[in-house]
Amino acid sequence: MEDFKNIFVLGIGLIGGSLARDLKRVLPGSTIYGVDSNDDHLDEAVGLGVIDHSARFEAINQADLVILAIPVDQANLFLPPVLDAIAPNALVMDVGSTKGSVCDAVQDHPKRDQFLAAHPIAGTEFSGPSAAIENLYKNKTMILCEVEKTREDLLAKAMQIFEALPMQIRYMNPHSHDKHIAYVSHLSHISSFMLGKTVIEKEKNEKDIFDMAGSGFASTVRLAKSNPATWTPIFKENKANVLESLTEYINNLTHFKNVLEAENYEEVFNEMHNTNHIKSILKGLS
Amino acid sequence: MEDFKNIFVLGIGLIGGSLARDLKRVLPGSTIYGVDSNDDHLDEAVGLGVIDHSARFEAINQADLVILAIPVDQANLFLPPVLDAIAPNALVMDVGSTKGSVCDAVQDHPKRDQFLAAHPIAGTEFSGPSAAIENLYKNKTMILCEVEKTREDLLAKAMQIFEALPMQIRYMNPHSHDKHIAYVSHLSHISSFMLGKTVIEKEKNEKDIFDMAGSGFASTVRLAKSNPATWTPIFKENKANVLESLTEYINNLTHFKNVLEAENYEEVFNEMHNTNHIKSILKGLS
Repeated sequence: MEDFKNIFVLGIGLIGGSLARDLKRVLPGSTIYGVDSNDDHLDEAVGLGVIDHSARFEAINQADLVILAIPVDQANLFLPPVLDAIAPNALVMDVGSTKGSVCDAVQDHPKRDQFLAAHPIAGTEFSGPSAAIENLYKNKTMILCEVEKTREDLLAKAMQIFEALPMQIRYMNPHSHDKHIAYVSHLSHISSFMLGKTVIEKEKNEKDIFDMAGSGFASTVRLAKSNPATWTPIFKENKANVLESLTEYINNLTHFKNVLEAENYEEVFNEMHNTNHIKSILKGLS
Repeated sequence: MEDFKNIFVLGIGLIGGSLARDLKRVLPGSTIYGVDSNDDHLDEAVGLGVIDHSARFEAINQADLVILAIPVDQANLFLPPVLDAIAPNALVMDVGSTKGSVCDAVQDHPKRDQFLAAHPIAGTEFSGPSAAIENLYKNKTMILCEVEKTREDLLAKAMQIFEALPMQIRYMNPHSHDKHIAYVSHLSHISSFMLGKTVIEKEKNEKDIFDMAGSGFASTVRLAKSNPATWTPIFKENKANVLESLTEYINNLTHFKNVLEAENYEEVFNEMHNTNHIKSILKGLS
């Protein structure tokens, strides 16, 4: 773990910036370099202490550890040239919310064994360097894909970091990951965005609706504050699974609408009652 | 306000029980009686200190203030006999989430002027006496309907309570209330319940999906823990407005699905971007 002296974080927003803060904590001897296409964000990240220095992509051959925390479609594009450029004992880890396409993009790369596909289940609805917070990853789940393809010594060092943060590890096939995460993460974002849209559209004609909104509404539409520049590529890369989950969601809503329309209140009750055990499932999540 | 010595709370769950706790705080000289069809809940409420004593419905002629906090269809049924039974200077207030049908139910009642139609915008996803918490209503919005039909002296005493809690007052027509609240409250509950259902159904075939869920999912499905015995009557009493909002929501989700299916990522981005200003709208809500 001590070998990770020079850490390059590509993309210093919510996810990369928060990880930069935590890496500095668990690897106090390291130097954190930020690389970002947005120069203002780089200045801001240095000013906020999220990173030690800004750097150019071309310096990446100096890195011992590279974190790819850029939009997932960009990660697919940048990962091969990053692997091309890095030193023989460096590790590259991507932390995007889709894993299938990024694993596919480097499956035949000669340096595939210097790559670790990761997805930390953590985040907030905010974005940019100012959204980077300490302990975002503490006690959260880290999903790792295709660990058998990562060089053992590099994987071992990465695991030491995850233990130090600390995070719980889960191992998954990248395509299973994408299928499941569509349901428990990607769909929630669409649900929130469209709920927000529905109410905003209504508000245009009926003023002051939002004065009537309480904490329940706020909770349900919280994710509608999320960054479209992050989420458009996620929906793009995980299109088939997102469409499947969205279709099932629309079908369930339509069924609920039909039973309410038919005044079948026993079924309206059952629809909710049968979902109530989500209470026990969600225990511990907040 | 001092005249409210004997307070009867009908329904001592989340809403009625929390109000009982706060009324005891702002009216320390009062005695709070709980009435509930569930005897176990009454015992629990006394044990938890939510109410001072349990009481029978027949004793309601002893009340100075009656709070109706029972399911909204029950409130419509019970309000006329409650008004029939109460003393000449008593006030009856209902705190249900729909206001049109309850106002209609007593529009020609000879004691209509002893009734105040109220909806406090406050709650949690929990239910029963154990869910009753202090300060649930503090700094929240209280919507009052048809205040011009309530006797001035009784309204003035109620307003003193709302000031003491304290709550912000909004005045609305009951049918406008029902139309708007469908969007900012009732629809959120359906959205959450059906999201929970969609993921639970998936989990049946694909194990351990919930291990991958984070705080975003938890936030979006929080309301799916809500009590179906409360919410079925709300959807029943506000059917037309709920169906309207649900139809618009399904239309918006279907549009999102169509543009994603068509790989129109510019429009996918815009759909989210145009909803992002919900950030400023939600400021202060949590």
